[in-house]
Amino acid sequence: MEGKEEDVRLGANRYSERQPIGTAAQGSDDKDYKEPPPAPLFEAEELTSWSFYRAGIAEFVATFLFLYISILTVMGVSKSPSKCATVGIQGIAWSFGGMIFALVYCTAGISGGHINPAVTFGLFLARKLSLTRALFYMVMQCLGAICGAGVVKGFQQSLYMGNGGGANAVNPGYTKGDGLGAEIVGTFVLVYTVFSATDAKRSARDSHVPILAPLPIGFAVFLVHLATIPITGTGINPARSLGAAIVYNRSQAWNDHWIFWVGPFIGAALAAIYHVVIIRAIPFKSRD
Amino acid sequence: MEGKEEDVRLGANRYSERQPIGTAAQGSDDKDYKEPPPAPLFEAEELTSWSFYRAGIAEFVATFLFLYISILTVMGVSKSPSKCATVGIQGIAWSFGGMIFALVYCTAGISGGHINPAVTFGLFLARKLSLTRALFYMVMQCLGAICGAGVVKGFQQSLYMGNGGGANAVNPGYTKGDGLGAEIVGTFVLVYTVFSATDAKRSARDSHVPILAPLPIGFAVFLVHLATIPITGTGINPARSLGAAIVYNRSQAWNDHWIFWVGPFIGAALAAIYHVVIIRAIPFKSRD
Amino acid sequence: MEGKEEDVRLGANRYSERQPIGTAAQGSDDKDYKEPPPAPLFEAEELTSWSFYRAGIAEFVATFLFLYISILTVMGVSKSPSKCATVGIQGIAWSFGGMIFALVYCTAGISGGHINPAVTFGLFLARKLSLTRALFYMVMQCLGAICGAGVVKGFQQSLYMGNGGGANAVNPGYTKGDGLGAEIVGTFVLVYTVFSATDAKRSARDSHVPILAPLPIGFAVFLVHLATIPITGTGINPARSLGAAIVYNRSQAWNDHWIFWVGPFIGAALAAIYHVVIIRAIPFKSRD
Amino acid sequence: MEGKEEDVRLGANRYSERQPIGTAAQGSDDKDYKEPPPAPLFEAEELTSWSFYRAGIAEFVATFLFLYISILTVMGVSKSPSKCATVGIQGIAWSFGGMIFALVYCTAGISGGHINPAVTFGLFLARKLSLTRALFYMVMQCLGAICGAGVVKGFQQSLYMGNGGGANAVNPGYTKGDGLGAEIVGTFVLVYTVFSATDAKRSARDSHVPILAPLPIGFAVFLVHLATIPITGTGINPARSLGAAIVYNRSQAWNDHWIFWVGPFIGAALAAIYHVVIIRAIPFKSRD
Repeated sequence: MEGKEEDVRLGANRYSERQPIGTAAQGSDDKDYKEPPPAPLFEAEELTSWSFYRAGIAEFVATFLFLYISILTVMGVSKSPSKCATVGIQGIAWSFGGMIFALVYCTAGISGGHINPAVTFGLFLARKLSLTRALFYMVMQCLGAICGAGVVKGFQQSLYMGNGGGANAVNPGYTKGDGLGAEIVGTFVLVYTVFSATDAKRSARDSHVPILAPLPIGFAVFLVHLATIPITGTGINPARSLGAAIVYNRSQAWNDHWIFWVGPFIGAALAAIYHVVIIRAIPFKSRD
Repeated sequence: MEGKEEDVRLGANRYSERQPIGTAAQGSDDKDYKEPPPAPLFEAEELTSWSFYRAGIAEFVATFLFLYISILTVMGVSKSPSKCATVGIQGIAWSFGGMIFALVYCTAGISGGHINPAVTFGLFLARKLSLTRALFYMVMQCLGAICGAGVVKGFQQSLYMGNGGGANAVNPGYTKGDGLGAEIVGTFVLVYTVFSATDAKRSARDSHVPILAPLPIGFAVFLVHLATIPITGTGINPARSLGAAIVYNRSQAWNDHWIFWVGPFIGAALAAIYHVVIIRAIPFKSRD
Repeated sequence: MEGKEEDVRLGANRYSERQPIGTAAQGSDDKDYKEPPPAPLFEAEELTSWSFYRAGIAEFVATFLFLYISILTVMGVSKSPSKCATVGIQGIAWSFGGMIFALVYCTAGISGGHINPAVTFGLFLARKLSLTRALFYMVMQCLGAICGAGVVKGFQQSLYMGNGGGANAVNPGYTKGDGLGAEIVGTFVLVYTVFSATDAKRSARDSHVPILAPLPIGFAVFLVHLATIPITGTGINPARSLGAAIVYNRSQAWNDHWIFWVGPFIGAALAAIYHVVIIRAIPFKSRD
Repeated sequence: MEGKEEDVRLGANRYSERQPIGTAAQGSDDKDYKEPPPAPLFEAEELTSWSFYRAGIAEFVATFLFLYISILTVMGVSKSPSKCATVGIQGIAWSFGGMIFALVYCTAGISGGHINPAVTFGLFLARKLSLTRALFYMVMQCLGAICGAGVVKGFQQSLYMGNGGGANAVNPGYTKGDGLGAEIVGTFVLVYTVFSATDAKRSARDSHVPILAPLPIGFAVFLVHLATIPITGTGINPARSLGAAIVYNRSQAWNDHWIFWVGPFIGAALAAIYHVVIIRAIPFKSRD
């Protein structure tokens, strides 16, 4: 502990005049910080531990609750002729973002709190988890999403089918390219926030970051919904898009469905590259 | 303190490559963490301490303020012909969720900040408090809720009776089963967040969690309201439903009233089981 | 520091099975906690220190900014024929609550961040500050509020006068007693949150509370506005009511003006009594 | 570390009866606090470090994302004939404020998280960063803003040009003086919050402040938007105003454009003076 505290104070003295706001500088010469080694692609030991399966269950339950609450909110707004008598489009954005905040908070200590295959993909590219774990998470997230949307459909089937079922599609007036672009940049915002919030260097300096991280991550989801609901209904989460599409299961949900996998995965990859290459400069460090 | 800090660092070193986001892993081999012993069903010493009665008073006052502010907000929205000239349905959701945030923050150190018999029931099932304390809390919560709704009725009796009095009921177009399901899953979301936020293991690792816990708990209440106000008006709190029903006291409030006790209690029990069996795996540990 | 940390761990061990949520118990036998001595009524030394006058300036500037932003928001909503094309009544509630959050955060370390004579009064009753300081704060708050409302009037005088100037008054359909009651309970919610957030015992246990306190305090203001804007426009802050009344200066603003001093002061006094007598049990302790 | 902790306890003992809320007093005799030396105007070493250029890239990316999300939200609201079927004006305010929250959180450790030439200017006046760095940041912020607005225009060019392109201008019914005043006070609120949140003295006392600072900073942006969208559309960020004006490029965007540079820079300068002269009293200290 002494070493850690010492570092904070040294950092503050050395950089305070050059790093304008709050947090100490993250100069490349901070010797006490060690980038964790990349996760192996396959780790046999993982498959024998209860915490591995528990993490998958937690991802399933969290994605289930995420779709249940958010799609139910969408249905409540869609069915009303006057949006004023509902929580409104802004309420839908709060629903998606707020659930991510609460669920990341709840599951961060169990599974890492991904609740989104694009987040899992981005963290896998940065070698923060093994390929086995990444695939297992994605499967559990998609299953949870299908169940969550299914329960909403179960409440009022005709209402669900008559109001689009919360499925993502490119709205009239926008091209498929617009939709793809909106998904790419939107997912970049989310995964960039995830990387910033869970930065290993930052965690080394201050152990409170993990506790606070869910709030900006949830806000990122909220903000992207504010901006891109008029374009695609906002995916930025392939499990959410898949779950709604499977349960709704009409051609308009499937026609554009590839956009809600390709877009988020490209956005997550760009965020991973930005974080690893520009912010952490890991490729350049390894040459030292 | 040294032991605790050491643990955090060890955990970070051992698991950092496998636990993708922020918080360190909660592997089942964390030896320094001790599950607290289950609370006794009846503890005589408790009944002689001032802090026991003070906790009951704090629950009473908190539930009183909770219903006063939230039902008054509902009345303000209900009485206006145009929802646009009010804080809207979203404002109602903020009112319920925000009060829980503020009140849990205020009373967490005094009574644990339940303000909800379903929360008390869930924590009792997990043996976090004695049966005596659980029953005492529930009685005080219900009394506080009745008084809170009564004061709102006192402001404008005709308005209160003409606008449904904030009482919960299954809305037209939904079956009783829909209402029960919505209450079960909604309460699961809330009590699951409460368990996650107040996890003994998590608290052992990081003492800031209790301070931050009220925010996700309040958000959980807000989010469930966004989703289920169109279905039942959202109970997920039997004291809130009972208080409004007693003060409103018309048959439409009483017909479905059982749903707002059975649903939340089932949801809380499921959340307790999920936390204790899946997340903490306590039954399996005790066999070791 | 060792003593403090030790206390936290002892507390956790001793009470964990009886105190259901998060924070450790605050049993009356926590020997390591010392209630600070009551502030003197008059302290000559205070008047010679720069920090005393700086605190008054900070209260002036904060109350100025509080009224400027919040009354300007009220004007923007009032002047529009369709509330849908504005930030709405909910936006007004966010404006008041959010400013209190930001301003308490900014000035807590300088003046304590009252920005409200009722808060100053409540804390004075609990002997947290001297009478000299309390009176000085109240005068500076009222001056700041008058200037803030005056600048808003300066933007568009006819608009300001035509839309009620953000002044508080009991709305049609409510009696003066309703207005007084709403102000009393509303201020109780605010000052109760202030006391809970700044509890000396809590601060002793965890130094992060002061940093986090502005958020629940701001939320309390937001929530009371959600509930009581339809009744009185929500005062719960005599400086805010006085500033708008002086700048608006028409009989409808002055007729009920006493309510917005008497109500908040009664509410603050009740919150102070509740905190000191019930929660802290200070009168009973002094007999030991 | 011992010295620091000791200070907190001494401070608490000495001042607790005079400083009414939460945080300990910041008396002028706190000997253990050292104001960092002013940053040099030009520092050659800076230009050779990767962290300098990385900070510029981070400012570019953050301002790009800021304009992309916020202007896209503005477009979504503007194009709809009924504001009720959109996220509304309040949603626009959340978009601007929320993005600043998330982006300051993400980039605070890399560049200080300015994302606004007025913030950079204010911190430069307080000598928190060198002139070289300040100019470099401003250029990168403006470039990022232009690109962000450009991408929004790329989605739907006719829609963008037909709805004002999110450019700032003084609205009908207000004079240029009103607009300038609104920009000055609005930027004062923002930069005052930035100074309060990142106060060196406060950071010395409590290392968690930097982590929490983004929330009040984001809220300040949100609140100023609630109040001044009806007057100018709210600039308080010259890069945001310039980016939208260049991409929109019609005379109504350019006529008032000077207001959105002069206003924010005056407001930031006033906030810097207030913080340095009144709150920190640095000119008087240096005479000691």
